[in-house]
Amino acid sequence: MFKKFKETIKPGKVSDKADDGVLAGTNDPEDHSDLHSQVKVDYQSLEKSPQGEKLYKWQREHIKTSDQSKEGYPLNVIIDPAMREMYQVVHKSNMTNVFDRFSEQQPQCKFCIEGLSCQLCANGPCRISQKAPRGVCGVDAHTMVARNFTYRHVTIGTSANIFHAHQAARTLKAAATSPESGLKIRDEGKLKRYAEMLGIDTDNDINKVAVELATLVMDDIHSPYHIESKLVNAFAPTKRKELWRKLGIFPGGGYSEVAYAQTMCMTNFTSDPVTFLLNGVRMGIANEYQGLFALDILQEILIGTQKITERKQNMGLLKEEKVNIITNGHMPLLAHVAIEMASTEKWQQKAKEAGAEGIQVLGHVCEGQQLLNYEGSQKMSAYVGQEGEWLSEEYLLATGVVDLFMFDYNCTVPTLPIYAKRFGTKLVSTHPVIKLQGTETIDFVPEKMEEQAEKVLDMALEAYKKRKEENREVYIPQHTSDCTVGFSTESVKEALGGSLKPLVEQIANGNIRGIATIVGCTTAQYGQGGSNIFKITKELIENNILVLSGGCTSAVMEYTNLTNPEAAEEAGDGLKAVCKQLGIPPVLSYGACVDIGKMTHTAMEIADELDVDTNKLPLVIGAPEYLEQKAVADACTAVALGWLVHVAPVPSVTGSEVVVETLTKTTETLGLGKLMVELDAEKAIQTYVDHIEGKRKELGLE
Amino acid sequence: MFKKFKETIKPGKVSDKADDGVLAGTNDPEDHSDLHSQVKVDYQSLEKSPQGEKLYKWQREHIKTSDQSKEGYPLNVIIDPAMREMYQVVHKSNMTNVFDRFSEQQPQCKFCIEGLSCQLCANGPCRISQKAPRGVCGVDAHTMVARNFTYRHVTIGTSANIFHAHQAARTLKAAATSPESGLKIRDEGKLKRYAEMLGIDTDNDINKVAVELATLVMDDIHSPYHIESKLVNAFAPTKRKELWRKLGIFPGGGYSEVAYAQTMCMTNFTSDPVTFLLNGVRMGIANEYQGLFALDILQEILIGTQKITERKQNMGLLKEEKVNIITNGHMPLLAHVAIEMASTEKWQQKAKEAGAEGIQVLGHVCEGQQLLNYEGSQKMSAYVGQEGEWLSEEYLLATGVVDLFMFDYNCTVPTLPIYAKRFGTKLVSTHPVIKLQGTETIDFVPEKMEEQAEKVLDMALEAYKKRKEENREVYIPQHTSDCTVGFSTESVKEALGGSLKPLVEQIANGNIRGIATIVGCTTAQYGQGGSNIFKITKELIENNILVLSGGCTSAVMEYTNLTNPEAAEEAGDGLKAVCKQLGIPPVLSYGACVDIGKMTHTAMEIADELDVDTNKLPLVIGAPEYLEQKAVADACTAVALGWLVHVAPVPSVTGSEVVVETLTKTTETLGLGKLMVELDAEKAIQTYVDHIEGKRKELGLE
Repeated sequence: MFKKFKETIKPGKVSDKADDGVLAGTNDPEDHSDLHSQVKVDYQSLEKSPQGEKLYKWQREHIKTSDQSKEGYPLNVIIDPAMREMYQVVHKSNMTNVFDRFSEQQPQCKFCIEGLSCQLCANGPCRISQKAPRGVCGVDAHTMVARNFTYRHVTIGTSANIFHAHQAARTLKAAATSPESGLKIRDEGKLKRYAEMLGIDTDNDINKVAVELATLVMDDIHSPYHIESKLVNAFAPTKRKELWRKLGIFPGGGYSEVAYAQTMCMTNFTSDPVTFLLNGVRMGIANEYQGLFALDILQEILIGTQKITERKQNMGLLKEEKVNIITNGHMPLLAHVAIEMASTEKWQQKAKEAGAEGIQVLGHVCEGQQLLNYEGSQKMSAYVGQEGEWLSEEYLLATGVVDLFMFDYNCTVPTLPIYAKRFGTKLVSTHPVIKLQGTETIDFVPEKMEEQAEKVLDMALEAYKKRKEENREVYIPQHTSDCTVGFSTESVKEALGGSLKPLVEQIANGNIRGIATIVGCTTAQYGQGGSNIFKITKELIENNILVLSGGCTSAVMEYTNLTNPEAAEEAGDGLKAVCKQLGIPPVLSYGACVDIGKMTHTAMEIADELDVDTNKLPLVIGAPEYLEQKAVADACTAVALGWLVHVAPVPSVTGSEVVVETLTKTTETLGLGKLMVELDAEKAIQTYVDHIEGKRKELGLE
Repeated sequence: MFKKFKETIKPGKVSDKADDGVLAGTNDPEDHSDLHSQVKVDYQSLEKSPQGEKLYKWQREHIKTSDQSKEGYPLNVIIDPAMREMYQVVHKSNMTNVFDRFSEQQPQCKFCIEGLSCQLCANGPCRISQKAPRGVCGVDAHTMVARNFTYRHVTIGTSANIFHAHQAARTLKAAATSPESGLKIRDEGKLKRYAEMLGIDTDNDINKVAVELATLVMDDIHSPYHIESKLVNAFAPTKRKELWRKLGIFPGGGYSEVAYAQTMCMTNFTSDPVTFLLNGVRMGIANEYQGLFALDILQEILIGTQKITERKQNMGLLKEEKVNIITNGHMPLLAHVAIEMASTEKWQQKAKEAGAEGIQVLGHVCEGQQLLNYEGSQKMSAYVGQEGEWLSEEYLLATGVVDLFMFDYNCTVPTLPIYAKRFGTKLVSTHPVIKLQGTETIDFVPEKMEEQAEKVLDMALEAYKKRKEENREVYIPQHTSDCTVGFSTESVKEALGGSLKPLVEQIANGNIRGIATIVGCTTAQYGQGGSNIFKITKELIENNILVLSGGCTSAVMEYTNLTNPEAAEEAGDGLKAVCKQLGIPPVLSYGACVDIGKMTHTAMEIADELDVDTNKLPLVIGAPEYLEQKAVADACTAVALGWLVHVAPVPSVTGSEVVVETLTKTTETLGLGKLMVELDAEKAIQTYVDHIEGKRKELGLE
């Protein structure tokens, strides 16, 4: 029957027959191992990027002069010097890679770009056009766009952030109950403080408090949508909670909320676009308090509350003669145990016995930022730094010196098995929720993390030995940037002498006009690739707007030297003075995209200091290169908190005027925030400035 | 900024400018009220369908002779005589309607049909082709197809079925605790039996038992994915549970499972197609025991366990001089209270005071089937019958005699507000999870259903008065079919003298070769529209295969006279003899699509009777016109239970050979069931027969 089915339908077996398919689009990495290993990689012929001061100068000239359109892509957008070098290696070798795939995907489908395509039911797929203004079921453009937005973006992003907090809670519980977990409670003060806010008796044994907190978080995440969330009740600003109740968007348990929203998205179910969008804001609230905010607290209790520190970033940190482990993702729990272990003399010795000079761990994407910041890992010698944003992942493996790449959450691209095979990297997933084709997965058992970490380090040593045995050619781009990182509500307060008051005073006196959080991902789109983030941030600081960053944006800030205190020189006079006085850069890296929870925390404390609701702050949220579903959920959080959110590229909602109007105008009239979509950096900056100045005026500040 | 955004992007404001847009694709039903009321409806010129015996003969000839392709569509597929008449009315009036929209949507996008289009992230949308064998992130055809299948279909369907059970549990709790709920516990025996299986002490007060059962169900739905579900443990067959544990697909709480799956679907997260698919089977298990099975039990406790009964079906049940209420959806909780109220002399009198001959309620789609079957509603005089499948919804309102249309769950099409405006129908949603544009919604408060039901009946009376005042023209197609319905494990057992043994004996002796459950929706696709269901069912009974039906398939069975005991004459000799002996039809309507839970129950009891695992049964599941996400989740349930599932139209998975192979072959090798895709009715029937005969052979039956 399947045979007949195949004959009738002609399954789109595209890649096996594609001429360039073996390397460009292989379906099963197992099938073509011989061919992969034949790929010739020419490390010699690449054009090297300038280094140090010259590099930073080049970056600043480059974004001024390049038009960043299709012509000259992608080198007209890649300003990370390491990625720039490695892109050339990979491109010349004709290996599939993210920037070349973006070119191959052009032109993209107009219906899908606008959200006007629906694939939910067997009467479809349907496309909305003048000729066919409704889908087969009768759905119009507005419902289709709003429903797509909900189930493709908001529910997925909300699930992912809350699921992360859920795993962190399980880990805290394991730390408190299982001596062989390898975990510690590193910030007892934080544990007690938040436990107390949740009504937990903190006079008990600390492990008991930890178990109670972990259980409360898990229970809240798993409570029904029709019972108000305890975490939201405990941590959200009072005025916001009143508004959310009035609007009917005060959430219950996050998973139940997601199931509610998914149910609404059924074929022939809810067809009111505004209902979908307000429900998205409701999920945004759960996303914050049961997701970002909760996971930040839980991870800091386990890994140490972040401290300001000076570190290094980029691929130049890789060492040919060391065992190089990359840890990737967003949930550095097992990674943290592994780093602690790798920092011991015992494991350094083991590495030496394997013929290496030692063993070192670098963090990729957000995981790398978190590990830079956490007080715990700051003390661990084996952790040497962060080395890149998600776009650079394939290029990183192409250096040939990554012995083991472990990953625990999102931003692990599907082509890694191809690269791992070609370049001899051992891939290991540390949570079954993320599995790649033909790749080893370690079960998530926080009670056994010590044993699991040992296993991972052993694998890395084996991979190193194999690299040496096979005498593999390697290439390490010689770039590192100095950066001052580790900012958060607590560390900023500490730097300011114990309170946010000095910062608020600088905002009040106008030295700092306001705050922009530049967060989220980077994309491979024309005009992006990190450069849109850089352009916008640079002009914001020139306009005396203090920038907080989190996510792949932090990597951009780092490799463009904006997180170096030196960058104060590039800021406007007011901000420059403040930065110089405090010895801080004009861009404060809060770390990962999930550390947005820490930024909202800072913002809430500033609002308290000013005694105003959060929507009154001179604050703008920017995601100038937003990529995926967590970013959309985070944007919903920001809208719930009353903030203006700039996003680019254009989200797939332009097919509906109702949806666009609701998200960019109507929500603000309800006391919520709103979205602003702008591709042009100059225009975006002007809007940031106008918004901040408008809010200053409302607050009576000059 | 929004203005600029609009200028740059040109939002796809398609329908306002479309020439035919006002009626065909209006975005906001409020905008064009005047224009709608100008639509001329010509009830006189339509070609009437034959009636009674002649109709059934015509249907049988029609499916033999028609080629059912594009030529002659849609009248070559519509075999419901009432819908056939009303389609002509609507089509001639140039009003937007489901069959005409299907034609307008041709041709459909090849990429989306095959699952080879991804719209998850801002680097996309991406399409897989020979030229571009991977998406920008690096995703290949297999991962893209499997991920689309998961987040577009399985998670939505699973959420919806479990959410339904969740609401039923809340309602049971309200019935047990709130005297003013208007609800009753109608089947104490069932309540106690299932409570006992879950370890609840049933010697308590019955209301206390009800609260405990409701709470246990809600808690299980809301438990973490990593804790085995109590409902699955209590109700699933032992051998299956062992297999599921072995395969790592024994689920925990359903909402947590959905969040897990949604997390996997993030951009740059899981990229192993088989992982997605096995996780889909895992959700299928939760879908059954926390969804269908649970909601069936809970609703029967509240509305009465179904009994075999003789009823009538189709639009001929509408009465011009009565207040006509249609109740639609899948969760007849408030509807049941309203029907009980409408059945009182008080409300009949109120209707008479409003100038009507009385007040009557009809059920649309699955809700209508459930209400036909439940023992409670069988005793209520105001409930007169079921009147159609989901495709007929717009045509139903076009009769002009529907005064109020209340709806509580899926299968409420987005164009109803347009029809309601034109034809004077009052629309009311009875749960905020389903909202239509510009339509009233009653909050879901099971504790107050009596008050809410009164409100709904009052609205219906008002709408009736307005219809009469405005002297609106109406047209009622004069068709009804006699049907014997109300089958379920319990009622079949009762008919057989208290045990399934006699049925098993008839299977063993070969009079009945096996069982096919023909379930699910109807579609507007070429060759479908109910006629594919009819063709397949007719030949199955000719082959001595007993058919159970549930969902819109039941409506098809009813309007084609297959649920009439007379239809025994059309069955093969063995089945005919059994049916005649028992006075039952060869197609046993179990009711709604959600009553599939009752069919799996029957199948499990037959397996117990034979002392075999469920995958050994001579049983096939058919969804010859499956439409949406709940159907996909139900298919995953069937695969978990080890059954062959026939689906048509072709699901959007053909772009990946790995996905097709996994679903149609590999799962079976693991002890699970498998999918079979076949558009041709003749070939599908042959596969059903071959599968059943193969299973008989394995069991040693001739």
